[in-house]
Amino acid sequence: MSKDKALDEYFLIQNYFSNIGSAYLAEHNVETSIGDDASVISSSGNTQQINSLDTSVEDVHFLSSMSPEDIAYRSCAVALSDLAACGARPKWFSIALTIPQVEENWLEGFAKGLHLFSDEYRIPLIGGDTTKGNLSITVQVMGEVDSGKAILRSNAKTDQLIFVSGIIGNAYLGLNELLDSATSTSNTLAYLKPKARIDLGLQLTDIASAAIDISDGTLQDINLICKASDIGAEIYLSKVPTSIPEKSLKLINSGDDYELCFTADEEKYEQILNISKELDIPITVIGKTTSSKELVLYDDKHKRIKLNSGYKHF
Amino acid sequence: MSKDKALDEYFLIQNYFSNIGSAYLAEHNVETSIGDDASVISSSGNTQQINSLDTSVEDVHFLSSMSPEDIAYRSCAVALSDLAACGARPKWFSIALTIPQVEENWLEGFAKGLHLFSDEYRIPLIGGDTTKGNLSITVQVMGEVDSGKAILRSNAKTDQLIFVSGIIGNAYLGLNELLDSATSTSNTLAYLKPKARIDLGLQLTDIASAAIDISDGTLQDINLICKASDIGAEIYLSKVPTSIPEKSLKLINSGDDYELCFTADEEKYEQILNISKELDIPITVIGKTTSSKELVLYDDKHKRIKLNSGYKHF
Repeated sequence: MSKDKALDEYFLIQNYFSNIGSAYLAEHNVETSIGDDASVISSSGNTQQINSLDTSVEDVHFLSSMSPEDIAYRSCAVALSDLAACGARPKWFSIALTIPQVEENWLEGFAKGLHLFSDEYRIPLIGGDTTKGNLSITVQVMGEVDSGKAILRSNAKTDQLIFVSGIIGNAYLGLNELLDSATSTSNTLAYLKPKARIDLGLQLTDIASAAIDISDGTLQDINLICKASDIGAEIYLSKVPTSIPEKSLKLINSGDDYELCFTADEEKYEQILNISKELDIPITVIGKTTSSKELVLYDDKHKRIKLNSGYKHF
Repeated sequence: MSKDKALDEYFLIQNYFSNIGSAYLAEHNVETSIGDDASVISSSGNTQQINSLDTSVEDVHFLSSMSPEDIAYRSCAVALSDLAACGARPKWFSIALTIPQVEENWLEGFAKGLHLFSDEYRIPLIGGDTTKGNLSITVQVMGEVDSGKAILRSNAKTDQLIFVSGIIGNAYLGLNELLDSATSTSNTLAYLKPKARIDLGLQLTDIASAAIDISDGTLQDINLICKASDIGAEIYLSKVPTSIPEKSLKLINSGDDYELCFTADEEKYEQILNISKELDIPITVIGKTTSSKELVLYDDKHKRIKLNSGYKHF
């Protein structure tokens, strides 16, 4: 599902949406707009606001067979994940819900999923819109950081370590299990109820130079950091943490895990290990940044694995 | 189109979405959440933020025959209209765009509509999301007011005058012209390129007790003020300003005009007339608020016109 899900958003943004009203950014205190996980807006105090918008479409971003509770929870968690990648504290969320018809049971289930999400991250639903149409959920999340502390995609430097949190590919395995049968496993849970790594993002504020949440696929998302930071990366396939021995390109690049991928100086390694212990979240080094303009993947014999041209930039 | 467009949003909100995470509203400084045109959030300075989210779905909120430029502009303007109703200054907007496929010409036209909107209201596009699916556009708008100055739906008092801006029903006439032929008239323009009455909203901040933008239909929208303010209303059909002599219930309740409907004390009448002259926008008294719990419509012989039970509340 994940390949089909993505229009080439990077291309679309660069070509059509990158400069709309950019003349008005400064007067409205917008520091970072199009092209990062979220937008950064300065406010009058010593905080900045972090805003993000995320749409989940039936049969593209979630299965139509999923319960309304899971659909609601997942749509919200994947939106909030963008704030985690910025190191932001969540403040509130709003929802635009498009549904084909009013079905009481379905809406009750959906509301239950919203309650669950709201209570887990302790943020209120403050508004939204309900419209008629094919099932689709757009979630807006608002958070904040202390001024200047947002972790951006564009700030990675060369010769830094590249880390991922959690285990990669479980959501993909879970999705396949869901397509095969309806049994609930830890993998299906990884797909149905992904966690936004808010606590981790908060801890990384002064440690990570750049971060992204893994929604489209580990390599694709690291590549977005590379493009935004104008650097390259070396990734070692064998080091990518997976729950099954076969570390295929397909598995590690499947997306949907909503783990964080981030870069940091080598000297931060001990601090990061301590965070990993404290939060009980695995954090693994999977590569390093380079001064090339290319993302390169190596197998366990340090042989280069051929990738398509999308991983080069100039 | 307008009747079919509305799920009973009031019902949905009351039943399913009104109290999700309401325990966390105060700690995140949310003053007004679900149930108004927009949400009001206090910030650290002496302003409040006004946030709204609005979805436009193909063949529900706009015609599939419309140009991508008009689709973009209209989707944004109708979202911004919620800020006008609150008396807010627009600050920025973000867009979640769902499209069935990538078509260069279409996207160029869509971007042109966004530029037009952005330049007209002098606000930047700061972010968003692009996904694959049936054509649908969710627009998030953010504005601000000086603290305590937001015009809410819930603050209308009894024995106040009820005003509308502009001419009612032109968008409906325009929509019908568009369905019949493709000629461009001032009516079709009212449908294709509605104006968000930002300048008017800003002038009404200390004058109007309550306001709403007319999206669903004049009576329906006044009824939302009545419910939120726990009052009733008397509306005189003959006074509703229309561009054709036949002031049918259908015409005045057609929606899509995005004019402002607001309540104010009679002593503000002269001030309001001056605003009307200054902004060159017709403003008309169409009724008054009452202490009943019902919206009542009168014909030109002061005979009551029968309305359905949706206009009573208890």
